[in-house]
Amino acid sequence: MSLLVIGTLAYDSVETVHDRREGALGGSAVYFAVASSLLAETALVGVVGRDFADGDLDGLRSRGIDCAGVEIADGLTFRWGGRYEADWNTRHTTFTDLNVFETFDPKVPEASQSAPFVFLANAHPSIQLKGLLQVEGPTFSVADTMNLWIDIARDELCELLKHVDGIVMNDEEARLLTGEENLIRAAQQVLGMGPRYVLLKKGEHGAFLMGADVHFSLPAYPVTDVVDPTGAGDSFAGGFMGHLAASGDASPATLRRAMLYGTVAASYCVQGFSIEDLGGRNSQDLEERVNDLLSIVTV
Amino acid sequence: MSLLVIGTLAYDSVETVHDRREGALGGSAVYFAVASSLLAETALVGVVGRDFADGDLDGLRSRGIDCAGVEIADGLTFRWGGRYEADWNTRHTTFTDLNVFETFDPKVPEASQSAPFVFLANAHPSIQLKGLLQVEGPTFSVADTMNLWIDIARDELCELLKHVDGIVMNDEEARLLTGEENLIRAAQQVLGMGPRYVLLKKGEHGAFLMGADVHFSLPAYPVTDVVDPTGAGDSFAGGFMGHLAASGDASPATLRRAMLYGTVAASYCVQGFSIEDLGGRNSQDLEERVNDLLSIVTV
Repeated sequence: MSLLVIGTLAYDSVETVHDRREGALGGSAVYFAVASSLLAETALVGVVGRDFADGDLDGLRSRGIDCAGVEIADGLTFRWGGRYEADWNTRHTTFTDLNVFETFDPKVPEASQSAPFVFLANAHPSIQLKGLLQVEGPTFSVADTMNLWIDIARDELCELLKHVDGIVMNDEEARLLTGEENLIRAAQQVLGMGPRYVLLKKGEHGAFLMGADVHFSLPAYPVTDVVDPTGAGDSFAGGFMGHLAASGDASPATLRRAMLYGTVAASYCVQGFSIEDLGGRNSQDLEERVNDLLSIVTV
Repeated sequence: MSLLVIGTLAYDSVETVHDRREGALGGSAVYFAVASSLLAETALVGVVGRDFADGDLDGLRSRGIDCAGVEIADGLTFRWGGRYEADWNTRHTTFTDLNVFETFDPKVPEASQSAPFVFLANAHPSIQLKGLLQVEGPTFSVADTMNLWIDIARDELCELLKHVDGIVMNDEEARLLTGEENLIRAAQQVLGMGPRYVLLKKGEHGAFLMGADVHFSLPAYPVTDVVDPTGAGDSFAGGFMGHLAASGDASPATLRRAMLYGTVAASYCVQGFSIEDLGGRNSQDLEERVNDLLSIVTV
């Protein structure tokens, strides 16, 4: 397997001003893998409860996602509920039931221990590091994080940052971690904490990538009908890492191009609840919209 | 003269969380012309009071700006006061004294009545139209507007939109005019009102240009030290129109490239109060930062 993702499989209850879904397939590793598997062979490490539908696991496998690392534990699958305001930017978490994820202890199957590309989806940074250390000298590893860990596990997060090649953050997280309001300066400060690259997501305003040898900024794909933003960041990471894994390198030129794939994967994701839209896409859909995005951003 | 701007010359009192300036040179046409004159011959039509300093008018002339259309009227110059919150996105207008601008009746000097490129800076849309109709068949005309006119002079604004080639708006104004939350759909609706192009500014998040033959999106230049955002939009318009006027055309390719010049002019503007930074720049500074921006946005 060329690409490994460690993270959550979940059932989400999402409410928007237009519609709602109860117990729909979600989770960071699911969104990531559904996107990345369009581009590269992907293995998934995570945990689900006995309630996780066989059909959902089969659905992931039918996409070519290696689910050998998905542990089935006694108990219930991770569940999350959220509600979005009309502007999409304000999200209220209505509940978080960690369930079997509370004692998640990632075990990377032997076949994935040599994966050259690794993505550590949002989890406690100690768990992320434990997963990463099971992979032997990956070419390129990237971690995601969230406000909660910056608040309650800052030391562990700082330790993780010394081990990964890249960190994915949104604007709010970058400001919280560094105390710096200006996003460029915040990104520069994060680079000083260890990773070679910072991938800073700004939602509908796009994203930028910063490292010693690259500074690249990309607007979001202009989606006219947003249905549910849940999973956009993980889909972005999936498209991004999927392109790196497919290319087999992480040169500045490949990193720039990977941003296009991440942006496009996220744009499909937000067009439906759960994986309703993204899950119906093929690699040609991805390429077509990448070309469309290129025409929009090329001077 | 290849480029004509009609708008305000003003004295601004600006307060930020870091510093303040009282009665500093400002006004939409001033910011525009200081930017555009780095690229193309610019003529300015506006009105000032007897209190307007000779040195300020001489300063504009020394940049090659044709001030023959600047009327000196009895009374005081337009004065505006504003205060910014720490995030820069929230601006409070502390006062607006229209003074001589209240009875502004634009008179375009004969030499400028054949200007191929025309910018109508923010003013009552009837005044803007009155100015525009004095120019004989311009190649490309663009108007700016603001919330106030959308609220109290919507009919006049809609009439103006039928006469201009392009309209400059920020995200909030586009939403207010169309009632459409999604910016892409809002821009599409504005296109249906008459202009061939909508130039939609999103402040620190960049800008996009939309028309039947072009859809181009550009992030903002990454400024690390914002001092005062006043005039950024007008400087953007100045860089944009200055490049069009220098190129002598408004083809889709030129329009895209003009967005870079607008973005860079705005980036210098916000690095200082009034024209303290932008006013000290030359065309080489502009070109250098345009190349820098190109390297940041090129895939």
